[in-house]
Amino acid sequence: MSKTAVYQVEVTFGDCDPTGLVMAHNFSRWMDAASHNFFIQCGVPAFRELERTRGIAGHPLLGIHTKYFQPATDGDHLDIHTNIIEWREKVFIHKHVVMRGGEVLCESTETRAFVIRPLESPDRIKAIPVPEDIKALCS
Amino acid sequence: MSKTAVYQVEVTFGDCDPTGLVMAHNFSRWMDAASHNFFIQCGVPAFRELERTRGIAGHPLLGIHTKYFQPATDGDHLDIHTNIIEWREKVFIHKHVVMRGGEVLCESTETRAFVIRPLESPDRIKAIPVPEDIKALCS
Amino acid sequence: MSKTAVYQVEVTFGDCDPTGLVMAHNFSRWMDAASHNFFIQCGVPAFRELERTRGIAGHPLLGIHTKYFQPATDGDHLDIHTNIIEWREKVFIHKHVVMRGGEVLCESTETRAFVIRPLESPDRIKAIPVPEDIKALCS
Amino acid sequence: MSKTAVYQVEVTFGDCDPTGLVMAHNFSRWMDAASHNFFIQCGVPAFRELERTRGIAGHPLLGIHTKYFQPATDGDHLDIHTNIIEWREKVFIHKHVVMRGGEVLCESTETRAFVIRPLESPDRIKAIPVPEDIKALCS
Repeated sequence: MSKTAVYQVEVTFGDCDPTGLVMAHNFSRWMDAASHNFFIQCGVPAFRELERTRGIAGHPLLGIHTKYFQPATDGDHLDIHTNIIEWREKVFIHKHVVMRGGEVLCESTETRAFVIRPLESPDRIKAIPVPEDIKALCS
Repeated sequence: MSKTAVYQVEVTFGDCDPTGLVMAHNFSRWMDAASHNFFIQCGVPAFRELERTRGIAGHPLLGIHTKYFQPATDGDHLDIHTNIIEWREKVFIHKHVVMRGGEVLCESTETRAFVIRPLESPDRIKAIPVPEDIKALCS
Repeated sequence: MSKTAVYQVEVTFGDCDPTGLVMAHNFSRWMDAASHNFFIQCGVPAFRELERTRGIAGHPLLGIHTKYFQPATDGDHLDIHTNIIEWREKVFIHKHVVMRGGEVLCESTETRAFVIRPLESPDRIKAIPVPEDIKALCS
Repeated sequence: MSKTAVYQVEVTFGDCDPTGLVMAHNFSRWMDAASHNFFIQCGVPAFRELERTRGIAGHPLLGIHTKYFQPATDGDHLDIHTNIIEWREKVFIHKHVVMRGGEVLCESTETRAFVIRPLESPDRIKAIPVPEDIKALCS
């Protein structure tokens, strides 16, 4: 398990499609922001700092499973509750729960890995074992 | 089962994040476009036409499960192969396979429903049984 | 002139392109959100309410002029200061100033109009004279 | 003056806001893609290649002036005609004309510069004089 961070989103007109409801890819975008926020709240430096000091360039998605229960619309205030429900050797499992007040709008579980850019091919990425210090900061 | 449609994407610089690779939410966005393209290719009118004539306002996501196998980057030409692998009474299951040449980059299965806006609350949506004529056009 | 509203943005990793800096279209997106926030702060209802009660569906852009002075990056806290610098009969001129602390990152002037959907062609929009009550609320 | 390239966009449901019309920031996004396409069509390598070989990391916007004449909607086929109308020492002026068939929907003029990341501060960017060989390829 891990700490939990809450990331706030205020839905705006332009987040909504012709039905007047939030487009699903905006939830993906917000959960990605919620993941970055989670690590910052836990004391992990941002990736542009991590890349400079340790070569860790990001933590891309390997898989995501999302269930949508209720739609969101313009003006809604959302709270995304993010934690890590499992650490494996090279990946970790994020859980995001998107709430509007006491109501759960959607839930995701994500599989992510920390990656470096190998020296021999700097335009590729390669997963590394989860760094122990990052795991400790988040626990 | 259903017909299959192919939706083409040319990845651009602005689709990529600081790692130089495509951000995951862009895959969500493209799969949504691939879904709309699928129905158009099958002969189903666009939703702004369907809403005017039959009240069907969209086909929002109820769930999505995506696996990412390989990253994409600026300049890649992607083909998204989209079909419907299952029809249920009120929902259907989409499959999207994102290819770069012969290589599978990612795969999604999506659960979606056709929705109307109930007369009594036009800013809500409500799932309807899958219309038989739409199912026939896609088969 | 008008009241001024401040809209806050916390830049995240996914707002940045392969240079590590915010993509320009995200500033457009945030200024649009800042405009909606401005009217809400002034006491004007959201458009989904305005459309139901008065038929006013939105306030699309007719023109925009933006100057970028300094780039923004992941983790930056931005304040967008928004007001209306001129009211004409059918359009108004927005000014947005995007600040990071005391530094101006970019500035836009936008021309916008309030629009309705004409009964005879509900998938078109048509500019209306600026409603006096909205003007009064913003002044 | 310069060569002209045409970039094609097929508008999808998710590009449109609750009015059913394309959100302005999508035009910004497409014009950015049209700019990258312009250079590729002229024979200039993509930036991830240019950065590796010559340190040129991108060509960010310094300013943009856009006029919107007609809205676009789901299903529209757009052609963005892009050229360079002026070369200065350190910047160049792009012109984009967005057409739907024979109709001009919007027009932009953009000021952009090619940038490097200075060795002493790799998370900053710095404009360089327009490279003569890039100018020649585009003329």
